[in-house]
Amino acid sequence: MKTKLTVTLGLGLVAAAAWAGPVEDQIRSRQSAYGFLGWNTAKIKAQAVDHPETFDKDQVIAAANAVAAVANSGLLGLYGPGTDQGTGWKPTRLKSEYFEKPADVKEIDDSFIKEANELQKIAASGDVGAIKEQFGKVSKTCKSCHDLVRIRE
Amino acid sequence: MKTKLTVTLGLGLVAAAAWAGPVEDQIRSRQSAYGFLGWNTAKIKAQAVDHPETFDKDQVIAAANAVAAVANSGLLGLYGPGTDQGTGWKPTRLKSEYFEKPADVKEIDDSFIKEANELQKIAASGDVGAIKEQFGKVSKTCKSCHDLVRIRE
Repeated sequence: MKTKLTVTLGLGLVAAAAWAGPVEDQIRSRQSAYGFLGWNTAKIKAQAVDHPETFDKDQVIAAANAVAAVANSGLLGLYGPGTDQGTGWKPTRLKSEYFEKPADVKEIDDSFIKEANELQKIAASGDVGAIKEQFGKVSKTCKSCHDLVRIRE
Repeated sequence: MKTKLTVTLGLGLVAAAAWAGPVEDQIRSRQSAYGFLGWNTAKIKAQAVDHPETFDKDQVIAAANAVAAVANSGLLGLYGPGTDQGTGWKPTRLKSEYFEKPADVKEIDDSFIKEANELQKIAASGDVGAIKEQFGKVSKTCKSCHDLVRIRE
């Protein structure tokens, strides 16, 4: 029983290591995820909010799929111990308070996933007004997290 | 008629600018896309190829959704003129030959999209052997593109 537990934990560590990697890798992976997210949210903002006359349904669907994929990718797995210090593509802006507020962070992450999944559904409808409204809800979850745990530039 | 064409082209440029941005932004966005892609392909490789005993169906489905979202995000829109020179997160490794081989690049991109969409479908089945096989097909399309247009490190 003890051996089995040890083996299971051992495999868990292998999986966790593969999943997240060293501190610098975790930071770079999350900066990449947010960079990819930002490119895709910019497309939705441009085409459904700022310049609806340029709306391209297929591009917005692809961008909303990307936003949902990022939201559901297990981002919190990239916030391991010590990742409030270090450099990925650039020095992290994560506040140390992140580790003191797991419930708040989880709540925001859950909202981000929920609203991003809803945006993915609504994008498929091609209704620009509805997309704009739902995009606003997704953006609010981004801002909540930035306000809570990201150092201002 | 001429006015209408000009207006249409003008809007097209607004959309293209929002879509891609200046050279440095295009390079950083594509490096982010590939960084996010790499994190997700690493999860699939770890769980379906190297350590199948750690296979977690939900994580692999999420990772395959991420790979498909990157493939379908319109990556070629991030390879505008001049983006063989410049620095995003780091200096680009794009060979100038990229711009001389549009048909080859398009063919590889089409294959990447096709194989990534297939991986997304197969991941949902939870069949580790089939995922491993299809993951190999996706990886081949990555390698084809690296061999064609990426400077070796």
